Amino acid sequence: MKFEVTILGSSSATPIFNRNPTAQVLNINEKLYLIDCAEGTQQQMLRFDVKGSRIDYIFISHLHGDHYLGLVGLMSSMHLNGRTKKLQLFCPAPLKELIDLQLKYSETTLHYPVEFIFTRTDVSEVILDNQDITVETIPLDHRISCTGFLFKQKKRMRKLIKDRIEELQIPVPYFTALKKGRDYEAADGTVYKNDTLTVDSAEPKSYAYCSDTLYNPKYFAQITGASLLYHEATFLNDMLDRANQTHHTTALQAAQVALDTKAGKLIIGHFSARYKTLNELLDEAQSVFPNTELAIEGKTFIISE
Amino acid sequence: MKFEVTILGSSSATPIFNRNPTAQVLNINEKLYLIDCAEGTQQQMLRFDVKGSRIDYIFISHLHGDHYLGLVGLMSSMHLNGRTKKLQLFCPAPLKELIDLQLKYSETTLHYPVEFIFTRTDVSEVILDNQDITVETIPLDHRISCTGFLFKQKKRMRKLIKDRIEELQIPVPYFTALKKGRDYEAADGTVYKNDTLTVDSAEPKSYAYCSDTLYNPKYFAQITGASLLYHEATFLNDMLDRANQTHHTTALQAAQVALDTKAGKLIIGHFSARYKTLNELLDEAQSVFPNTELAIEGKTFIISE
Repeated sequence: MKFEVTILGSSSATPIFNRNPTAQVLNINEKLYLIDCAEGTQQQMLRFDVKGSRIDYIFISHLHGDHYLGLVGLMSSMHLNGRTKKLQLFCPAPLKELIDLQLKYSETTLHYPVEFIFTRTDVSEVILDNQDITVETIPLDHRISCTGFLFKQKKRMRKLIKDRIEELQIPVPYFTALKKGRDYEAADGTVYKNDTLTVDSAEPKSYAYCSDTLYNPKYFAQITGASLLYHEATFLNDMLDRANQTHHTTALQAAQVALDTKAGKLIIGHFSARYKTLNELLDEAQSVFPNTELAIEGKTFIISE
Repeated sequence: MKFEVTILGSSSATPIFNRNPTAQVLNINEKLYLIDCAEGTQQQMLRFDVKGSRIDYIFISHLHGDHYLGLVGLMSSMHLNGRTKKLQLFCPAPLKELIDLQLKYSETTLHYPVEFIFTRTDVSEVILDNQDITVETIPLDHRISCTGFLFKQKKRMRKLIKDRIEELQIPVPYFTALKKGRDYEAADGTVYKNDTLTVDSAEPKSYAYCSDTLYNPKYFAQITGASLLYHEATFLNDMLDRANQTHHTTALQAAQVALDTKAGKLIIGHFSARYKTLNELLDEAQSVFPNTELAIEGKTFIISE
């Protein structure tokens, strides 16, 4: 099952030419999930051919402008482009007030329903559970209420061994039962054990999105073993004081999180505008956790195929 | 005196790649005045080297997202970049509520004062009067309250004829009086008429910014004789019904406004995303008012030098 994330923005609050503030889009089984929606996200979607009409879920980590100021524009464009299907919006509660007020003053009545699901920062919760995934909030430690999001693929049914199925000429109506683990009894009474007809599906993968946060082990247990971890890395470690003061993380610390939580792979992002090039941030992280890559606009990371 | 406008965005609400929604920056005697501030304006400012620290005045025409959704981000960046000097913001009154609420939820206290000057749409008012210009609101006819802005250069003092001043060895302390029109009496009692020592300064120029509006002669008298007229031209005239329905103008109508109000020159902008190229819009306008140009991102139009 396709499970991949494309970076739409990788910078922190102060703008810098050629980097956009935070937004990412997940493609999970051909459904799109937008995570954060900074100013300019719509333009990035056009640039990287991400269709707004395919997005049914939007997740906003917190109400600093560099994570949500593109949302009302995107929602208005969905409206102007004729959307009628429901949008689910997972966000801090005050965002509803902000959106309602902006729609009120622009005298806009959206042609599609928006379902708000408010996030909490005192406890982790499952906020979405559909046929493909579950999504849990990750309470983080930022200056204002902030959650990350943990996307967990569901365990899929067992896979048929096609050659064996054909050989035994097992009829199609039996397939679902086989995938669920049932044995097969042929017309002549012979019983074929399930594990001779099917193989286990791949282990479910997971994606942990840790936006703005102080390095704080409180969220480590929850994200342990993530196939792919995105973690903010606003500063180099020589600015650790500044990171602590602003409740951000350094590249070194982000790599330490990946190491401590046994991540499969790490992506770092949310880079301060002071870094015109990103090599030093990458080098610093890789010195602790070699399997690290940079969040680069337009780059897609495959979590499972 | 320098008086010029640079286009930062030229599209209407639905996003299109490579065009940004509305924003413009005026340079008047080396002070910057921002007019409208759509999403992405900060990135456009970086692209065209417009320093936020040089902007002391921002004018917002109305509260449709494609004219103001970049404002809170820009104000936050000014804050993060250490601004302490006052910002004057001319806008519809509800914008203050929106800004205050977004700052509240991001727990941001700006390090600089913001003075709000609320615009009215029932009557034109002078909302700014400084040493270089006056600015008047232009009540327009849009779906929601909307004003344009008329920037009028002030008449400058007379200019000294340098050769004559040197020839007569007139001392510097007399210069201001001469510029104000006084005659000069030399030490030997000879009186030199002012108009032999100075020439009149150039006639003041003006810039009329007419953002979203139905074609409606109610604002024509006020903008008559503008040196440069910016007028929205969202559609081609074959979509006149749609223009009327959405309270917008066609390229043909924008040119008619320029003709009716004897504009020196016309810029058209606010193009619908349906137009991938803009030639037809330009051709249509030029068929009525030949001295028309397109609002193109990054292009600067000189009003006076």
